[in-house]
Amino acid sequence: MKKILNDPFSYAEETLKGLTRAYPQYYRLVEGTARVIARAGEPRQGKVGIVSGGGSGHLPIFTGYVGPGFLDACACGDVFASPSADEMAAAMRAANGGAGVLRLYGNYGGDVMNFDMAGEMVEFDDITSTTVLLADDVASAPLAEREKRRGVAGMVLTFKIAGAAAEAGLDLDGVTKVAQRAADGCRTMGVALSSCTVPQAGKPTFTIADDEMEVGMGIHGEPGVKREKLKAANDIADALLDPILADLALPRGERVTVLVNSLGATPVEELFILYNRIADRLGDAGLTIAHPLVGRYATSMEMAGASLTVLPLDGELENYLTAPAACAFWKV
Amino acid sequence: MKKILNDPFSYAEETLKGLTRAYPQYYRLVEGTARVIARAGEPRQGKVGIVSGGGSGHLPIFTGYVGPGFLDACACGDVFASPSADEMAAAMRAANGGAGVLRLYGNYGGDVMNFDMAGEMVEFDDITSTTVLLADDVASAPLAEREKRRGVAGMVLTFKIAGAAAEAGLDLDGVTKVAQRAADGCRTMGVALSSCTVPQAGKPTFTIADDEMEVGMGIHGEPGVKREKLKAANDIADALLDPILADLALPRGERVTVLVNSLGATPVEELFILYNRIADRLGDAGLTIAHPLVGRYATSMEMAGASLTVLPLDGELENYLTAPAACAFWKV
Repeated sequence: MKKILNDPFSYAEETLKGLTRAYPQYYRLVEGTARVIARAGEPRQGKVGIVSGGGSGHLPIFTGYVGPGFLDACACGDVFASPSADEMAAAMRAANGGAGVLRLYGNYGGDVMNFDMAGEMVEFDDITSTTVLLADDVASAPLAEREKRRGVAGMVLTFKIAGAAAEAGLDLDGVTKVAQRAADGCRTMGVALSSCTVPQAGKPTFTIADDEMEVGMGIHGEPGVKREKLKAANDIADALLDPILADLALPRGERVTVLVNSLGATPVEELFILYNRIADRLGDAGLTIAHPLVGRYATSMEMAGASLTVLPLDGELENYLTAPAACAFWKV
Repeated sequence: MKKILNDPFSYAEETLKGLTRAYPQYYRLVEGTARVIARAGEPRQGKVGIVSGGGSGHLPIFTGYVGPGFLDACACGDVFASPSADEMAAAMRAANGGAGVLRLYGNYGGDVMNFDMAGEMVEFDDITSTTVLLADDVASAPLAEREKRRGVAGMVLTFKIAGAAAEAGLDLDGVTKVAQRAADGCRTMGVALSSCTVPQAGKPTFTIADDEMEVGMGIHGEPGVKREKLKAANDIADALLDPILADLALPRGERVTVLVNSLGATPVEELFILYNRIADRLGDAGLTIAHPLVGRYATSMEMAGASLTVLPLDGELENYLTAPAACAFWKV
């Protein structure tokens, strides 16, 4: 196992401990937990709280995006495993400023079950909560079955937009509606070039030949839509963009933001090579790119590969996307 | 070759083109060149210019750190290859605001030769320049032969400090002295777990067994000080820290900053695991960590591994380190 770790069974805890030690200006470990992170300081009274959570191994997702203008708290599980309902409830309590809490997380069975249970648990603390499920992965189900799609890198954009809406003072209903609108717009498509190794498994999650790639693979190694020979960057960009554009069916003249994301090992150099083709193609389609992001925003540890997210913007979404925010991983 | 690219021979150019297209608020391609990047807009008159440069394949180093409070311009070569003297001269002209230009770059033979030549070339344009060589890699030569050491991740800290000094209005002599002081203090030690693949070579630069690591390996795959069995994270942290502390011989009570850097594929999760041990050890040594950085700051494309940089601080260096700066890659 070519990883830097002490004990596979404490990988998540040690990661989160290091995160809070290195960046105490942003993050604190919630007392009585080992894997629940909240913003430094007390929750802001009267502000809607936003919680997320899910398996570890995707930094900066999920925990990295806790901070002003972003999430308030986050429950993390072991690598690629759901946190417990108790941990999620602890995150909700830590995020609660008396104005309700939005549960904003990826559409995965274990997370849905546990976050639903956590929502019931905190009702006893008089915490009202709503849910927006993030389901941006075009490859994971056809458009007609959107409720089956998984949440991947597009989650980051919805975190940012919802976080800014809460910071701006919208009430729980308002923040929930903005988050839902961003979530509804997000489309992501990924390609994997190599596997990662879950520490507790100790060997790569899947195998893939040296000359192959898998289009549409999920961020935990869920099967994609096709495995084929590794193509040139421009062809990979097309393979990511075509299903997104077909799904969104945008008229010319729209504004969109794009997120070109490395799954981990793929260097940002190669993301910029992809970006050239994506920008050309979106320009040809009459679309204007606003505030593109290129980098590592949602990873699968050391998996090689990349994903593309496209989110159509209106004035409100764009304002929230570009509003000030601070955490250790948000760069522009 | 498990990489996302179109043509190995245009990898650097396409990368830089994508960088300037995605982030035009920070970067522009200098006219008449394919691989020289300058800050967006015109050089600020009366400000000392700072240029750097070197091979591509290390993003965010070098080009990523062009921006307000950082570098003014940067010349990039092919992957792991020096830019030409002409390109360096173009970078120096682009950085020139009439107050002189500091050449601030890593201590590699080709870069030194070409930057010296570039300095002579721009004398005809009445550009005065100075040089500070960055040589933070403890593994590459003993302390008694410090002038032989290579520049690695610590370069980023000196870019930041020198950039802030120039922004604050120091003259060329002042900026050069501050940069030299930061460069003199920086110590870095790295460990490689896997190779990367130079696009034009098409195969990994070196081989290393699945259960091995190489301590002290350079960022282009230069041989390290020892190859041994892959150890636990805490032991790796010790292997990085021990030679740095021996080299610096700091008295208790000093303030230092640390940069825990991934060489590319190693996920930030594992950097945070390393950070715990580094923070414990520095605490035990009576040292206070200020403004730690954990992330990907100086990479070797998809190489797995990590490096640790320690820089002793005084009030002036710390002020410049934490002064405002903006580029697509500086996060805190």
